[in-house]
Amino acid sequence: MHLTFLIHCPDQPGIIQAVTRFLFSKGGNVVYLDQHVDKDARVFFMRIESEFNHSINTNDLRASFQKELGNPFAMQWQAYSRESKPKMALFVSKYEHCLYDILARYHSGELAVAIPFIISNHKDMAHIAQQFKLPYYHIPVTRATKATAEDQQLQLLKKYQVDFIVLARYMQIVSPKIINEYPNKIINIHHSFLPAFAGAKPYHAAFERGVKIIGATSHYVTEELDAGPIIAQDVAPVSHSHSIKDFITQGRDLEKIVLSKAIKLHVNRKTMVYQNKTVIFT
Amino acid sequence: MHLTFLIHCPDQPGIIQAVTRFLFSKGGNVVYLDQHVDKDARVFFMRIESEFNHSINTNDLRASFQKELGNPFAMQWQAYSRESKPKMALFVSKYEHCLYDILARYHSGELAVAIPFIISNHKDMAHIAQQFKLPYYHIPVTRATKATAEDQQLQLLKKYQVDFIVLARYMQIVSPKIINEYPNKIINIHHSFLPAFAGAKPYHAAFERGVKIIGATSHYVTEELDAGPIIAQDVAPVSHSHSIKDFITQGRDLEKIVLSKAIKLHVNRKTMVYQNKTVIFT
Amino acid sequence: MHLTFLIHCPDQPGIIQAVTRFLFSKGGNVVYLDQHVDKDARVFFMRIESEFNHSINTNDLRASFQKELGNPFAMQWQAYSRESKPKMALFVSKYEHCLYDILARYHSGELAVAIPFIISNHKDMAHIAQQFKLPYYHIPVTRATKATAEDQQLQLLKKYQVDFIVLARYMQIVSPKIINEYPNKIINIHHSFLPAFAGAKPYHAAFERGVKIIGATSHYVTEELDAGPIIAQDVAPVSHSHSIKDFITQGRDLEKIVLSKAIKLHVNRKTMVYQNKTVIFT
Amino acid sequence: MHLTFLIHCPDQPGIIQAVTRFLFSKGGNVVYLDQHVDKDARVFFMRIESEFNHSINTNDLRASFQKELGNPFAMQWQAYSRESKPKMALFVSKYEHCLYDILARYHSGELAVAIPFIISNHKDMAHIAQQFKLPYYHIPVTRATKATAEDQQLQLLKKYQVDFIVLARYMQIVSPKIINEYPNKIINIHHSFLPAFAGAKPYHAAFERGVKIIGATSHYVTEELDAGPIIAQDVAPVSHSHSIKDFITQGRDLEKIVLSKAIKLHVNRKTMVYQNKTVIFT
Repeated sequence: MHLTFLIHCPDQPGIIQAVTRFLFSKGGNVVYLDQHVDKDARVFFMRIESEFNHSINTNDLRASFQKELGNPFAMQWQAYSRESKPKMALFVSKYEHCLYDILARYHSGELAVAIPFIISNHKDMAHIAQQFKLPYYHIPVTRATKATAEDQQLQLLKKYQVDFIVLARYMQIVSPKIINEYPNKIINIHHSFLPAFAGAKPYHAAFERGVKIIGATSHYVTEELDAGPIIAQDVAPVSHSHSIKDFITQGRDLEKIVLSKAIKLHVNRKTMVYQNKTVIFT
Repeated sequence: MHLTFLIHCPDQPGIIQAVTRFLFSKGGNVVYLDQHVDKDARVFFMRIESEFNHSINTNDLRASFQKELGNPFAMQWQAYSRESKPKMALFVSKYEHCLYDILARYHSGELAVAIPFIISNHKDMAHIAQQFKLPYYHIPVTRATKATAEDQQLQLLKKYQVDFIVLARYMQIVSPKIINEYPNKIINIHHSFLPAFAGAKPYHAAFERGVKIIGATSHYVTEELDAGPIIAQDVAPVSHSHSIKDFITQGRDLEKIVLSKAIKLHVNRKTMVYQNKTVIFT
Repeated sequence: MHLTFLIHCPDQPGIIQAVTRFLFSKGGNVVYLDQHVDKDARVFFMRIESEFNHSINTNDLRASFQKELGNPFAMQWQAYSRESKPKMALFVSKYEHCLYDILARYHSGELAVAIPFIISNHKDMAHIAQQFKLPYYHIPVTRATKATAEDQQLQLLKKYQVDFIVLARYMQIVSPKIINEYPNKIINIHHSFLPAFAGAKPYHAAFERGVKIIGATSHYVTEELDAGPIIAQDVAPVSHSHSIKDFITQGRDLEKIVLSKAIKLHVNRKTMVYQNKTVIFT
Repeated sequence: MHLTFLIHCPDQPGIIQAVTRFLFSKGGNVVYLDQHVDKDARVFFMRIESEFNHSINTNDLRASFQKELGNPFAMQWQAYSRESKPKMALFVSKYEHCLYDILARYHSGELAVAIPFIISNHKDMAHIAQQFKLPYYHIPVTRATKATAEDQQLQLLKKYQVDFIVLARYMQIVSPKIINEYPNKIINIHHSFLPAFAGAKPYHAAFERGVKIIGATSHYVTEELDAGPIIAQDVAPVSHSHSIKDFITQGRDLEKIVLSKAIKLHVNRKTMVYQNKTVIFT
């Protein structure tokens, strides 16, 4: 039995000692511990992995944890078992590079998730879903049908008990109705080094500005466009000799690398969000 | 005799052939040629280095060039000899890292420039100028004295026949009076990956936004703050565990590397500016 | 009509002028020119792209080129038209990441090649070939059957008029019989920053040595193992906290990026080989 | 009062809990904890920082630590106070870039060390020592005088109670007599991405091999040349257009960055050595 705890609470002396003592007393062996203190906000963050050689009743353990640690330290915490793979829904539009990249990693076992389905506002990617034998729901989105479309999306998300959503270059703005159901559980890839070039056509804007570096940013989706907590970023050099088309081609590799990195961090429970920023554990 | 030509003109067939034929006819051997075409603007850019084994009269050569190539092709062009080192004025305030970095490179012969003097609005860096035996002009700048101060600066720049200016973390906005005298000849280092975090306190802003990458940008100074043509950029990874102080320390290395890179590109005549963007030759 | 010329010859004055004059005289407009001089070896390299607005007889052009330039300058040269896509054979074994990456790029039109078939010494990747509707030839290789297997491979390569070969983590040493038929036309990906960790199990060796950076190298295959001309390299940071398994996972992304970069450079005629090194044009 | 503990011991359950309990019982507040388990060697590593608001007797604390933790867990451990700056000796030869870089950082307060003196086998850098008002000992080294020279060096190291040594491009092999007195306390910078290009003239070898990336490596000095535990590495892209001289110039920046990074890691007690590899804490 292997449990990963993500914890944050007001900072005070003795937290690490209390948590490690608790786990030790329950027969757990700490195999990983990383912590961070936000000194301005005076908030303590910790990720701790514990192995239990004997069988344990996780419900009892959770209840004890809440009583002995959660209440006294005013903790926000989650405990995740490795046994169950999180369910990841994929939203796509017309670009295939991130979709192929994610499905190839999924197929090879690199991503410890289940993918119950792919949703798209276009039919174009249906054949790729078919290649990988995954259900593909074509839900067109127009200004008129957006509300209905999102209801359909939500129904699917509920029906399949989806844990988190990946927008793999989904070219629609997700509305608060869905965001509020999946807080810090919707991962987007934006094709610029945010906060530079938020919004539409970032490669065009980067070209226009004459930057020497382009980037990609993966972040959790919040109501403000392209302004959610950043999970991962990467960049690549460009020059005057590159056209916008070159930027787009080069950027696709960045988008693939950054999005898959963010997915892996999320799935491995290495991300915590606080005040619109992330703590990314090692 | 070695000459480097920087040329731009409306694009049309035959330019390269005409220029290389001209140089060949004058006894020059082309040892470097790089060109670029801005297909949207239909402008042709070229950097060409030619060696002449015999002595040539450069005034005659320039006149012939203008007549045979400059006029027919409507060229903007410059020819630079390696014989004379450009004169570089340094403007600093209170930060010593870029200053030390530039002076150490200068001392070792890495920068093919002459440094006639250092100007500062503070006294703090005077001892470093002394270490390297360079004149240091302390010209305080307040809102009231700014116009007078800039007149003093201009007098020094003229007196020493300065070719270009490097703002090595000079914490004052340079006014159009100076910019217009040195168009695309004032190099600034800004401590962010522009266009993100233009203006004051970029490390603080980057920390606040929770970015995973910080950067530095060297650019030619134009009247719009931090919006001039970008010469060089570089970035470094950061994480939640870094404080603003860590950002500043890490950023210093970026600033040094990027500023010295920009200086070398400028000195080696590898930069051309067109429509607020740079062409950077290899 | 668009032609790309790759040229190398003993260095001497006037080559650029002669070539551009020749193309101009044939009605060509030079749209790209990059050159390099190896000063030790005194060899001149050039890549030049020319557009012809009218129809030209390329056989006549080639004959004139050889007569007017090739012979007098003792040039080795090739002229490539964009019209015909080069035929690229894929060799794989049991790793799917590079194969998926290449096929996804191929599918999206990013690679201007035709892929006539995939050869493998194992059956494992057959279903991926099927996903992309490509012929898959399973040619087992044992010590006893190696010679016969390579004859089969050669037959396929000839039958399909293959232009170049990509070893996408093909875990067999290719013998001189094939290498000599495809000189500088077999691209391999090695999972280390060569020359460090040549040979088998480079990630294990890197882990053992405690390096802080791992890499991948794409190179042309020569008879000496992992010692051919390097086309592209990339690296990624690692730390003590990474296991060999982490190195392998992280390395897969490097391998994909570096191999696809090398393929694109080769296909776009941006590589020249000389004395076991490459010239990579911009 | 602030103490940093570096600990390693055979892995077993309960170590973190025991250490944090101990510190808590002594009135310490853990402000940083990072740990690592080498699963093959079954060794546990930890870096822990603790603040004590009241005055403590560190001798008593050390004794208690040894009794309550060191003995039962078979720990190798060190406790460092921030109060005393470590004494760092600089060894140089004829290259000034690393020396200037270190002294500029030292001068600005970036390095929390004291520099009692500079030793060199040449006179060339004496004026730089003078610029920074540091003692400079010129100790020539020839094959005949090497033993005597090293005795002189050792005398100085002892006299000034030097804590660790930095070889800032010191072009002499340090013999076991000195290495054994300063185990994992001599930091070297080698101008290649080790293990590639160990030994002399790595830039020449890199040029010869035609690599597309050059690097620099900082490591602790052991008896085997360039084979000690790696502390930090960095790389930069190069191309066929770069000469050996360009490699050297570009490499200087890498050397400066990597060496200063290694010094800071060492000074901040973020390095542990085990089986010729380093654990580098965040």
